[in-house]
Amino acid sequence: EVYFNNLAKQKPKEVMEKNGSNHKLRVCVATCNRADYSKLAPIMFGIKADPQFFELDVVVLGSHLIDDYGNTYRMIEQDDFDIHTRLHTIVRGEDEAAMVESVGLALVKLPDVLNRLKPDIVIVHGDRFDALALATSAALMNIRILHIEGGEVSGTIDDSIRHAITKLAHYHVCCTRSAEQHLIAMCEDHDRILLAGCPSYDKLLSAKNKDYMSIISTWLGEDVKTRDYIVALQHPVTTDIKHSIKMFELTLDALISFNKRTLVLFPNVDAGNKEMVRVMRKKGIEHHPNFRAVKHVPFDQFIQLVAHAGCMIGNSSCGVREVGAFGTPVINLGTRQTGRETGENVLHVRDADTQDKILHALQLQFGKQYPCSKIYGDGNAVPRILKFLKSIDLKEPLQKKFCFPPVKDNISQDIDHILETQSALAVDLGGTNLRVAIVSMKGEIVKKYTQLNPKTYEDRLELILKMCVEAASEAVNVNCRILGVG
Amino acid sequence: EVYFNNLAKQKPKEVMEKNGSNHKLRVCVATCNRADYSKLAPIMFGIKADPQFFELDVVVLGSHLIDDYGNTYRMIEQDDFDIHTRLHTIVRGEDEAAMVESVGLALVKLPDVLNRLKPDIVIVHGDRFDALALATSAALMNIRILHIEGGEVSGTIDDSIRHAITKLAHYHVCCTRSAEQHLIAMCEDHDRILLAGCPSYDKLLSAKNKDYMSIISTWLGEDVKTRDYIVALQHPVTTDIKHSIKMFELTLDALISFNKRTLVLFPNVDAGNKEMVRVMRKKGIEHHPNFRAVKHVPFDQFIQLVAHAGCMIGNSSCGVREVGAFGTPVINLGTRQTGRETGENVLHVRDADTQDKILHALQLQFGKQYPCSKIYGDGNAVPRILKFLKSIDLKEPLQKKFCFPPVKDNISQDIDHILETQSALAVDLGGTNLRVAIVSMKGEIVKKYTQLNPKTYEDRLELILKMCVEAASEAVNVNCRILGVG
Amino acid sequence: EVYFNNLAKQKPKEVMEKNGSNHKLRVCVATCNRADYSKLAPIMFGIKADPQFFELDVVVLGSHLIDDYGNTYRMIEQDDFDIHTRLHTIVRGEDEAAMVESVGLALVKLPDVLNRLKPDIVIVHGDRFDALALATSAALMNIRILHIEGGEVSGTIDDSIRHAITKLAHYHVCCTRSAEQHLIAMCEDHDRILLAGCPSYDKLLSAKNKDYMSIISTWLGEDVKTRDYIVALQHPVTTDIKHSIKMFELTLDALISFNKRTLVLFPNVDAGNKEMVRVMRKKGIEHHPNFRAVKHVPFDQFIQLVAHAGCMIGNSSCGVREVGAFGTPVINLGTRQTGRETGENVLHVRDADTQDKILHALQLQFGKQYPCSKIYGDGNAVPRILKFLKSIDLKEPLQKKFCFPPVKDNISQDIDHILETQSALAVDLGGTNLRVAIVSMKGEIVKKYTQLNPKTYEDRLELILKMCVEAASEAVNVNCRILGVG
Amino acid sequence: EVYFNNLAKQKPKEVMEKNGSNHKLRVCVATCNRADYSKLAPIMFGIKADPQFFELDVVVLGSHLIDDYGNTYRMIEQDDFDIHTRLHTIVRGEDEAAMVESVGLALVKLPDVLNRLKPDIVIVHGDRFDALALATSAALMNIRILHIEGGEVSGTIDDSIRHAITKLAHYHVCCTRSAEQHLIAMCEDHDRILLAGCPSYDKLLSAKNKDYMSIISTWLGEDVKTRDYIVALQHPVTTDIKHSIKMFELTLDALISFNKRTLVLFPNVDAGNKEMVRVMRKKGIEHHPNFRAVKHVPFDQFIQLVAHAGCMIGNSSCGVREVGAFGTPVINLGTRQTGRETGENVLHVRDADTQDKILHALQLQFGKQYPCSKIYGDGNAVPRILKFLKSIDLKEPLQKKFCFPPVKDNISQDIDHILETQSALAVDLGGTNLRVAIVSMKGEIVKKYTQLNPKTYEDRLELILKMCVEAASEAVNVNCRILGVG
Repeated sequence: EVYFNNLAKQKPKEVMEKNGSNHKLRVCVATCNRADYSKLAPIMFGIKADPQFFELDVVVLGSHLIDDYGNTYRMIEQDDFDIHTRLHTIVRGEDEAAMVESVGLALVKLPDVLNRLKPDIVIVHGDRFDALALATSAALMNIRILHIEGGEVSGTIDDSIRHAITKLAHYHVCCTRSAEQHLIAMCEDHDRILLAGCPSYDKLLSAKNKDYMSIISTWLGEDVKTRDYIVALQHPVTTDIKHSIKMFELTLDALISFNKRTLVLFPNVDAGNKEMVRVMRKKGIEHHPNFRAVKHVPFDQFIQLVAHAGCMIGNSSCGVREVGAFGTPVINLGTRQTGRETGENVLHVRDADTQDKILHALQLQFGKQYPCSKIYGDGNAVPRILKFLKSIDLKEPLQKKFCFPPVKDNISQDIDHILETQSALAVDLGGTNLRVAIVSMKGEIVKKYTQLNPKTYEDRLELILKMCVEAASEAVNVNCRILGVG
Repeated sequence: EVYFNNLAKQKPKEVMEKNGSNHKLRVCVATCNRADYSKLAPIMFGIKADPQFFELDVVVLGSHLIDDYGNTYRMIEQDDFDIHTRLHTIVRGEDEAAMVESVGLALVKLPDVLNRLKPDIVIVHGDRFDALALATSAALMNIRILHIEGGEVSGTIDDSIRHAITKLAHYHVCCTRSAEQHLIAMCEDHDRILLAGCPSYDKLLSAKNKDYMSIISTWLGEDVKTRDYIVALQHPVTTDIKHSIKMFELTLDALISFNKRTLVLFPNVDAGNKEMVRVMRKKGIEHHPNFRAVKHVPFDQFIQLVAHAGCMIGNSSCGVREVGAFGTPVINLGTRQTGRETGENVLHVRDADTQDKILHALQLQFGKQYPCSKIYGDGNAVPRILKFLKSIDLKEPLQKKFCFPPVKDNISQDIDHILETQSALAVDLGGTNLRVAIVSMKGEIVKKYTQLNPKTYEDRLELILKMCVEAASEAVNVNCRILGVG
Repeated sequence: EVYFNNLAKQKPKEVMEKNGSNHKLRVCVATCNRADYSKLAPIMFGIKADPQFFELDVVVLGSHLIDDYGNTYRMIEQDDFDIHTRLHTIVRGEDEAAMVESVGLALVKLPDVLNRLKPDIVIVHGDRFDALALATSAALMNIRILHIEGGEVSGTIDDSIRHAITKLAHYHVCCTRSAEQHLIAMCEDHDRILLAGCPSYDKLLSAKNKDYMSIISTWLGEDVKTRDYIVALQHPVTTDIKHSIKMFELTLDALISFNKRTLVLFPNVDAGNKEMVRVMRKKGIEHHPNFRAVKHVPFDQFIQLVAHAGCMIGNSSCGVREVGAFGTPVINLGTRQTGRETGENVLHVRDADTQDKILHALQLQFGKQYPCSKIYGDGNAVPRILKFLKSIDLKEPLQKKFCFPPVKDNISQDIDHILETQSALAVDLGGTNLRVAIVSMKGEIVKKYTQLNPKTYEDRLELILKMCVEAASEAVNVNCRILGVG
Repeated sequence: EVYFNNLAKQKPKEVMEKNGSNHKLRVCVATCNRADYSKLAPIMFGIKADPQFFELDVVVLGSHLIDDYGNTYRMIEQDDFDIHTRLHTIVRGEDEAAMVESVGLALVKLPDVLNRLKPDIVIVHGDRFDALALATSAALMNIRILHIEGGEVSGTIDDSIRHAITKLAHYHVCCTRSAEQHLIAMCEDHDRILLAGCPSYDKLLSAKNKDYMSIISTWLGEDVKTRDYIVALQHPVTTDIKHSIKMFELTLDALISFNKRTLVLFPNVDAGNKEMVRVMRKKGIEHHPNFRAVKHVPFDQFIQLVAHAGCMIGNSSCGVREVGAFGTPVINLGTRQTGRETGENVLHVRDADTQDKILHALQLQFGKQYPCSKIYGDGNAVPRILKFLKSIDLKEPLQKKFCFPPVKDNISQDIDHILETQSALAVDLGGTNLRVAIVSMKGEIVKKYTQLNPKTYEDRLELILKMCVEAASEAVNVNCRILGVG
């Protein structure tokens, strides 16, 4: 835990006062699918539990509302959150074009929602196309964005999206030390980056002691023992759909050969998923006695399943991220998570081109127990995030600063600088006349005021003050500085 | 000019051969408005002039197709480019919401176009919302993106958009040394960054000797002399619309007081522009004898106008970028260009809060002649860009690399590494038996093959080869390396 | 007034009870532009004034929200209606394609609004593309639609749209006897058609006595007298844009020659309007001493202006509809209102192909006073409409009936009909046996029950009842009717 | 066949000449799903076979492009048509809102396609939401629409859509005599209605002699005999989703009890279909030995399957339309086809509220053989349609005429009528003077020309001609008619 930074720059109450005494922070959390909800839910619970400080609006879009992906918006209802708006944003087509059009559909619809909600801040998670739509609309509508899980590297198109969201976001909550370093490397403002750990770890690490055997029985069958089954979760890789389908085929073959009870989750909604489902059908997975194929497992049950699995296999981010917390062996297939930080529990099969290679990996990993990893969190992310949210000063300008390394000075000038240094008020007290003048820096007299010098000191002072007041008021018009009286 | 790097890593012809002998590079240039077209047109001319190497498709969208903004798609037709597709992408509403919805509309429509064109590369310019739509759709559809003018800093929401586009783009053509450094600082791959200078400078610097007096007469009146008129071009600032309207009002007041012949261009299509037009109407600019208010000036004429103006005023990027090439004095108002590199010809009035301050700036700048600046280019950008385009190897993976500073090694393992080092083929030639074995790195024998040693050397060799072939074929299945024969 | 039908089929209170004792009728009124608002506003005021029965939600879209068209949503705010939702729905482009895309944009956005509001009924007015979007979304979402002003004929593309909306709408409020007859002719259900008159006439006819001179002075100048000025309002004709622009040019020429003070309203947002504005500019209308060019006149002031004009000229529906109520002479140009019913005050210049012809029409009409016409209403439309709304029984099926003339009977059969008539229960009480049978209509015995006849009457009755119960229960399974006991 | 009208008003060649000698009719056929393609394909083949007269562009959208619905665009490719454009137009969500948004998406995308294709006419089929989008975009873009299968009545929301499309369409091809009568009843122009019969009947009736046994074996199993299996095809009813799911459940129960080999097709993409699929899964249909569940059967094979089935059951339009041609017994469930004309082969179970009732219907219908019906066509629809297409005169105005019953004459006037009858040229040859005058119809002299009568007849004639020419040229300016010389 040492490495998680202490964020204590501002006391929240002060900020609240700054932001207007009665104003609560209106937080809009937008969730698109079961994966991002597993990270956002812990934060949402935290926000909801502090109604004095926060107002929470929940917007649901993307694959949450799709039957084929389990209508997972119901999870949110079951968690007792009010869903303010549900937006259909997915265009059918299951290819890249449909993905782009889905971003478009979301962008056409989101402004009305944001205009109605008028949130102070929108919380966006991750690196999927729906998240890009959310970030784009909030950024262009001058609404602050808190981005969760930026700075990571997976080696896919997701990287481009994730980093693009980073550029649009105003505040960053990242999960790992490397991610934090990447954000800083990409010139994000260090003051607006919080290394919190992954919010899902809060739930993960607090969930360890549950009665898990009944969960395992429910999903894998009565007779299955801990460490003696496999969880498989493989998604299409949108930059190389063909290859990822081939890889899935090999994986299923290897799993069939390996002959252990296996829970297979259906792939997510990305382009290519239909072909993968077809492969599952072709291999008879849905009716094979060793396999159970399911669309969705509630997150808290999923945790227990992977925590006690003999091995997890696939290319899900969950494998390289969450599962490390339990020391469960993981086989990560292909390049989808390339570059992700992982614990030692992960065995990569980057070039998963033969069934044998995958089978060999299963033989190596199955049943092992690795030490638990805290790379992705220590279970205290949510409190850190809430504190960070409270520290946001809405009076600070919305405009992002990018912390580029210094470049040589600009050679252009600013009028304020010129005016300030251009002229001065000069006062000459002596002689027969009192003289006050506005003098430019180059010594030229801009304006002169001359009066006969009165006799008495009192009169003289009175007059000189009057002249100075007059001159000063005029000098102000040309932005001069009064340098003194000589 | 010393600082422009020489790009000669690959000979284009080789690349063309690599990319398939008859394959030309299909370049799609998408242009959204007169501003980006002024940068893209020189490149488009260059591409069109090399039909052996390139195929050019032109897509027109955004404000090009809007009557209020001069139907500037006609410029493209006049330049004799075939417009492949025209897309209405602007949603009316003149506020931020409409801007987001316009991005959405573009994203809904672009995939069909890109699917039809199937370009090898899309060229996108700048930092406007339409460009973000283009970059998003190309990136998600796995089409290479060349981004022109990334890495710059203006200090507005445009920064977020520009840097987000950078993260989506695969190749970067930047205009200034600082921009290049910023791109590198944001961890873009140095090999994919070209410091070319601004393409508009090619035209700018080659256009100097034209007969400009008739152009000036046309736009500003018969009696106007060089260095004795003003060009004003102010756009709304979308992050602070109110203030930018106030500033425009003060500017017009100052210009009225300053009493010089002035060409005022209408603001662009951004949120807030309607209020600015209303301010123009209120001040009677359209009927004021000193003023000429126009929607659009053809770029080559505009160059001549600013090249010979007594001063340019406003917050257009043109002022801080292009105009420096001629040494024309510029007054840059407000924060829209904050952070942009400029020549010494630019006087900033960042806090343009009084008419007097602007008037003073006019008095300081009007009629001056500064040395010409080459910060933004030396007039040779287009040849550099064409060479860069030709060097693109379409067989290289599409996946972007981000050049983050090194982080500590991953502690996970890769199956290929394990398998490679795990085992070897050991051959024992001596004694009564010939023995061949697959031996693990730790010395354990994985598999053994034993045969009686034949009498004759020929037989022996034949047998040993046969055994090796057999063992090797099995060894391959477990990915072992054949270490040699002992 | 005799011809306005008395609608008194149901007492509203009964309906309210039917619809559930506490349920108010949730009415959603969607308004797109100043024209439809002038018809909808009187209804909206009526609905708002009866909060015991109605709940009103107002949705604003289309050109109401466009600066160029006067931001007329402000009229609605000034009338003190809460606007529930504002939707940008206009795609820029000013051609037919943009019009279609605008319908599309509205359809993408409206479902979310309708899902949130869950209205019992949506009120839609007229024949414009926005209205088609509203009707399409409500119809497909199974929401009742009340269409105002169906059945009329104008002779343009509007006819197709208007009649298409009629086909989607469940209830019709029409303005003229002919319109009612057209609706009936098109096979709409007579019970769901109300001939109410035009709602705008309620305001028109109640507004007659106002002090109108100050309004005339405000809009046309101090020195202008009643019956001595012209109001011109011409819109583009989307099916023949070129011609309608030419016609506008001729009209302006004729008006310039005619040399009377003239108020010219800018054309509406339809395709072609930009070119028309350009014609106005070219002819110098905005600066001509005889002309006043304005974007928008508040409806109640507009009424006074046309009521006291020497003539109204153009192709607006207002000319052929509303203006008749005052007997003001109207010159209707071109085919846009072809087929509309008009009073004798209207002089058509269908083929407005020369300036002379239009000039001649001006000479004939200017300054005349015709008798007032009640073709379009008697000033009592709103009470009729409210009563009609109250009579809507939400328990009636949503499915529309179309009243086609009878066609010959279907030769297919219905199972219920077959089953009902197929079989009967026959009971034979006499002899040694008690016999109960299920008998088909053709006399065949389907099933027989036989028992020895008991001795005592009590036993006999008991047994026969038992047998009947048994047989009946089986007969029910085959849907037979019990015919009696023989 | 007697009742199919002979359309021979114009010889096609003449029309082609009228339309411009070299101009072919550009026909755009847009198809959305397998159902409409089965009607459109025969027409498309006909168009393609006449390249001298037609140019065909094919646009594919809607569920054709959806994996879950069998990617049926491949049928079109297999039929060797070039697909010009493929548009994703379906928004996910499987409810009514998604349906509306899908119409919106299509409307946003279609204008670009239509602008590129510039068809002379668009052929649209049927009554689904996609067809409404097609008709709306073409109508608003002033493109002629030929609508196939208008005028029918099914008793659902489809009716509203179908009739709305009718109002937008310019030409109508209908399938039955009743449909024709309905179109006329709805005031469509009789001259633009063609009673052709259903195009699918052309294929149906020409396909009778094929070897069908292998097709039956392929889809239903080796051992199945003709007239001894069932084809079930039930779709959701979008106006009452719940009830239609319940009905599907009862149907499956009845089919399970009935215990015959049954081919079940998956429901179409309408709202509610996911729940229906779930019901299928719940009942174990996919693994039941008696059932075969499939997404798509090629149309020509489907024809053979229903032609030889013991019975077809469901609520598909195919059941009440196409199947009658073979005399196959049909059980039509619920209200989806209410009002459709059917042959005597159809038994309706309108109120399908018990399993018994459906079972009873199966018992009544299964295995029967009815006489073939020609209500929906005689197999010659396509030649009629092609002839009708050829007769379209593109020079006729696009504006639709609606044939409303006559209403009383308009009391407004037309300037042309006034001018024509207002004045005449009067010539008086006698006396000392030659007099020519323009005389109004009321006898007033508008303008007089007088000259001394020359002496000689030749001079007199010359002068009178000169005067007439002068007067006539002026008379033309006031639109007078020259009545003759008296």
